[in-house]
Amino acid sequence: MFTNSREVTVEWGDCDPAGIVFYPRYFAMFDASTAALFAAVTGMTKREMLRHYGVVGFPMVDTRASFHVPSRFGDVIRIETTVGALRRSSFDIAHRIMRGDTLAAEGFETRVWAGLHPHDPDRIKSVPLPADLAARLTDGPTHE
Amino acid sequence: MFTNSREVTVEWGDCDPAGIVFYPRYFAMFDASTAALFAAVTGMTKREMLRHYGVVGFPMVDTRASFHVPSRFGDVIRIETTVGALRRSSFDIAHRIMRGDTLAAEGFETRVWAGLHPHDPDRIKSVPLPADLAARLTDGPTHE
Amino acid sequence: MFTNSREVTVEWGDCDPAGIVFYPRYFAMFDASTAALFAAVTGMTKREMLRHYGVVGFPMVDTRASFHVPSRFGDVIRIETTVGALRRSSFDIAHRIMRGDTLAAEGFETRVWAGLHPHDPDRIKSVPLPADLAARLTDGPTHE
Amino acid sequence: MFTNSREVTVEWGDCDPAGIVFYPRYFAMFDASTAALFAAVTGMTKREMLRHYGVVGFPMVDTRASFHVPSRFGDVIRIETTVGALRRSSFDIAHRIMRGDTLAAEGFETRVWAGLHPHDPDRIKSVPLPADLAARLTDGPTHE
Repeated sequence: MFTNSREVTVEWGDCDPAGIVFYPRYFAMFDASTAALFAAVTGMTKREMLRHYGVVGFPMVDTRASFHVPSRFGDVIRIETTVGALRRSSFDIAHRIMRGDTLAAEGFETRVWAGLHPHDPDRIKSVPLPADLAARLTDGPTHE
Repeated sequence: MFTNSREVTVEWGDCDPAGIVFYPRYFAMFDASTAALFAAVTGMTKREMLRHYGVVGFPMVDTRASFHVPSRFGDVIRIETTVGALRRSSFDIAHRIMRGDTLAAEGFETRVWAGLHPHDPDRIKSVPLPADLAARLTDGPTHE
Repeated sequence: MFTNSREVTVEWGDCDPAGIVFYPRYFAMFDASTAALFAAVTGMTKREMLRHYGVVGFPMVDTRASFHVPSRFGDVIRIETTVGALRRSSFDIAHRIMRGDTLAAEGFETRVWAGLHPHDPDRIKSVPLPADLAARLTDGPTHE
Repeated sequence: MFTNSREVTVEWGDCDPAGIVFYPRYFAMFDASTAALFAAVTGMTKREMLRHYGVVGFPMVDTRASFHVPSRFGDVIRIETTVGALRRSSFDIAHRIMRGDTLAAEGFETRVWAGLHPHDPDRIKSVPLPADLAARLTDGPTHE
């Protein structure tokens, strides 16, 4: 399965009065890392990709995270994001936050590929993951 | 074990381009709900409580959440927060987000009671949960 | 002009490593306060109101804020929000953050009433503020 | 005066239900841009710099921003950050957000250089901006 990696500088505004990352900010970093993985395999921004496939997003169904070593503002961390299981309309992603060689935190997520509900524009419903996208998530970006 | 409840209005700024709560915001709501539970049992704000016990916080070690029904800006949700297992220096908290009678989301967390590291003011370390606080978390606020 | 007031508890996650509110969080509080003012005058949630008037929002054009006294997690602040000038498709709002009798911060904002661009669903454009809404913003909620 | 520039990818989680950046997020980006400017002139992370000079931060006193063209998730913006007036213990910073050649937004800020209050560790007070730092903010990083 494909892995994508990106560096993130921990900002002052990511941190709490204890001086360490306020943990909900890790989930925002994970969300951006999942978007970056999709951008890497499709060559499209998330906005282009959603329009291309006619969906509204890939909302979170289930997530968990473990925080091993706190990070502080000014730290540069590396987030390694890997595709896990792909199912009909849902998929798993795993994130590892590295500070140098130290595994600082881990995140796991299950998301659904979601479109607008056909009868209610105010609701969303899961739709099948496109086959070409599933293939790219498995194999990584095509290098044509 | 004690349960504390509070209402939260979902704000425009909590929501993403799909119009539903950006899930990291749920974790910020859970964090505030855990603080509200501590405030309810101690009668102190989080700041007063940290100073009273000489600690720097109760950072997250492990958390997970499941999102069953999306919420949108303008929705009023109720977050029910319950103390789970209490251990020497860590403890579990569970959150249920209700939209009317519907269970919209659930969160689970394990946190540590943390002070400054004695030899390095830049580090934090777990310290034993005070006995009087543990008793209140079990029994709820004392009504003297 | 109408004034609406609401109380906000400053949360741990609103604060930075200096222990005081991370100032972008004040703007999120102001944004929610403007939404609360509209809800107070219309009796609708922001979502209901946007749908009722067929617009996509009231994005910010210009804003400024002054921070006089820092607030810390656990503090309860009161945000007083007042309608200022109303123009054809834009309007001014002022916020005062009070900590007891102390003016802790002030915010000023100019927003536009915005709909989708007729020829490009990916763009937004200002549209005239509805007359009935302008009247309510001036006079406050009708008590029928 | 010195100018520092950085690129920011607008994330899904930075955007609101109208699909455009939720404006408080611009202030978080500006805050990180000011930190990046200080890092560029000192060669230290913000944490190292605060410790080096024995201060707690440079809190915001006054800020304003104008939003000319909305940005959306997936957009890459460039934030150009320039030092303005330097006074005894306060200073001005200006930010320009560029989308290609388009000026998308502008921000202006006045901050104070702040230490702990000598008699009350729970308060902060302005302290003089160090002369060597003021020189670097004027001239940019020294290239020794």
